Amino acid sequence: MQTYLDCYPCVLRQALEAARMAGATPGQEHEIVLATLEILKSLPEGATPPAIGTEVHQIVREITGNQDPYLLVKRESTEKALALLPDLYALLDQADDRLEAAIRLSIAGNIIDFGPNPEYDLWQVVKRVSRQAFAINDLPVLRKRLAEVESVLFLGDNAGETVFDRVLIETLEGDVTYVVRGGPVLNDATREDAEAAGIDQVAEVIDNGARVPGTILSKCNPEFQARFRDADLILAKGMGNYETLSTVDAPIFFLLQVKCPIIGLDVGAKVQSIVVKKGNYAH
Amino acid sequence: MQTYLDCYPCVLRQALEAARMAGATPGQEHEIVLATLEILKSLPEGATPPAIGTEVHQIVREITGNQDPYLLVKRESTEKALALLPDLYALLDQADDRLEAAIRLSIAGNIIDFGPNPEYDLWQVVKRVSRQAFAINDLPVLRKRLAEVESVLFLGDNAGETVFDRVLIETLEGDVTYVVRGGPVLNDATREDAEAAGIDQVAEVIDNGARVPGTILSKCNPEFQARFRDADLILAKGMGNYETLSTVDAPIFFLLQVKCPIIGLDVGAKVQSIVVKKGNYAH
Repeated sequence: MQTYLDCYPCVLRQALEAARMAGATPGQEHEIVLATLEILKSLPEGATPPAIGTEVHQIVREITGNQDPYLLVKRESTEKALALLPDLYALLDQADDRLEAAIRLSIAGNIIDFGPNPEYDLWQVVKRVSRQAFAINDLPVLRKRLAEVESVLFLGDNAGETVFDRVLIETLEGDVTYVVRGGPVLNDATREDAEAAGIDQVAEVIDNGARVPGTILSKCNPEFQARFRDADLILAKGMGNYETLSTVDAPIFFLLQVKCPIIGLDVGAKVQSIVVKKGNYAH
Repeated sequence: MQTYLDCYPCVLRQALEAARMAGATPGQEHEIVLATLEILKSLPEGATPPAIGTEVHQIVREITGNQDPYLLVKRESTEKALALLPDLYALLDQADDRLEAAIRLSIAGNIIDFGPNPEYDLWQVVKRVSRQAFAINDLPVLRKRLAEVESVLFLGDNAGETVFDRVLIETLEGDVTYVVRGGPVLNDATREDAEAAGIDQVAEVIDNGARVPGTILSKCNPEFQARFRDADLILAKGMGNYETLSTVDAPIFFLLQVKCPIIGLDVGAKVQSIVVKKGNYAH
C-alpha cells in the first residue's frame, strides 16, 4: 500500500509518541520531530507507511539510546492477554464453528497496537469481534485452503496479540511456523514476545531478520525469504503486514481489524471493521 | 502561546484539509504538504500556531489560486446561526442573568471552527454551554469592568460565531467596536461575515489589516494597533486570539471553548471546557 498524504500527520504524531515512550528529553523530542519532517520531505517513491515507521523508530533509538522503548508495554500487553486466556478457551469451547471462532479471536487480539490508537478495553473488543459481521469475508476460501495444505506460515504482528494467535494456531490442523520481527520495533512481537505467549510450544518460531513494523521482503533475511516463497498458505496479521504485502504475489490471507481510515480505504472497509481478505494475487 | 511539538501533526493535518477545501489537485496537495513540512522545519523562535497557520493558508492560496477557500462554508455557518437567532433570543429572555446568558451564547458560537474539529451539532452545543460550569470563571471581574467602561473592543473570531457575538453585543451597555480579520483566512470572520450577521447594525466594524487566524499585533495596521493600545476593555473570542494575545499586556478577557488539548494545557482547562479568562496582565 502506498503512503497517502493523510499518513504524514499520523507519522509525525507517532514519532512524538515513540519519542516520549523512549523517555526522550524535550530537546531529543524536538530533534526527533525535525528528523521526521526530513524523512517525510524526502520519501522515496512508493515507500509504504511501515518503511517510514522503520526509519522513524531507528531515529528514536539513535537519538534516545533506548533500544526497545516498548519493552514494558509489550510485556504488559502479553500479561493482560494471558490473563484472558481461560476466557478465550471458554469462548472457543462454546463455539459451533471452532475455526471461525479462533480466527475471530486472533483478529480481536489485533486491537493491541500502539501505532494508530492505544486506547481500548480488550475484553469488550473480544466480545464485539466474536459477534460482528466480517466487512470482507474470504473465510470460506481460507477454510478450503487450510484443509488442503499441510503447513501454514503465520506472520505475527504485535506483542500480546501473540496470545490470541496462539489460540488460533492450536485450532489449526497443519504445522505452523510463526514469524516475528527481527528485532524490537514499536510494540511488534519479537521472539521473546512469542515465547512469552507460549507460541514456541505450539509452533516453530522464526524471525524475519528485519526490524520493520510490517514485512518488507527485501529487508528480510534469505531464510525467511525462502520460507515465504515456498509457502503454500500465509496468514498475515494486522495492518503493517497488509501495508507491506498487499501488492505481493503470494498465497496470503490478511486477518486484521481496520484501525485507520486510510488503510480502510485501501482495504475497502470502514474503521472498526474486521476483515479476512484473500490477497489479490493469492491462488 | 508557544507552538508545542504536539501542534506539528495538527498543522500538517489542517494544511491538507485547507488544500482540499481550496480544491487542490493531488499534485497541489502534495506541494502544499511539502511546503508545510518546510515551514515546520524552519519555525522561528516563539512562533505561535496562528503565525504558522498564516503561512500555511498563504501557501494554499498561492498554490491553488483560490483566494477564499472557506467562502461557502462561512456563508453556510452564518445562515445556520441566523436560523437559530429567534431561539437564541428566547433563551436570553428566559435568563435571570442576561449578561451571563449572552456571554454563554457567544462562547457557544465559538464551536464554529474549521481548525481543530469541524463536527458538531450547533443547537446541542448551545444547550450544553447554556448550562455547563465555567472551567475558568472570571465573569465577576468582567462584569465589574463592563459596568465601569464606556466602550469595548471586541475581537471576533469565526464566521457564524459572529451571529452569537451580535447577541452579546446587543446585551452590552457601552459602545462596541467589532474587529474582523483584514482578509479571508481559514473560516475567520471578515467584514462581509460581520455584516451578514448584522453586526454593523449594532456596533462599529473595523478590520485589523492582517490576514491572520488570530491577532498578531505587529502584523496589524496602525489604526487597529492604536485602538488596541487605547482600549479600556477588550473581549477576545476564541483560541486563535488566545494563542496570539495570551502574553500581551492589555486589559483583555478571553471568551472561548477549549477545542484542543494543547491549548487546554496552556489555558488550564480541559477540552470541551468553557472559559472566561482574564488576561494575565489585565488590570
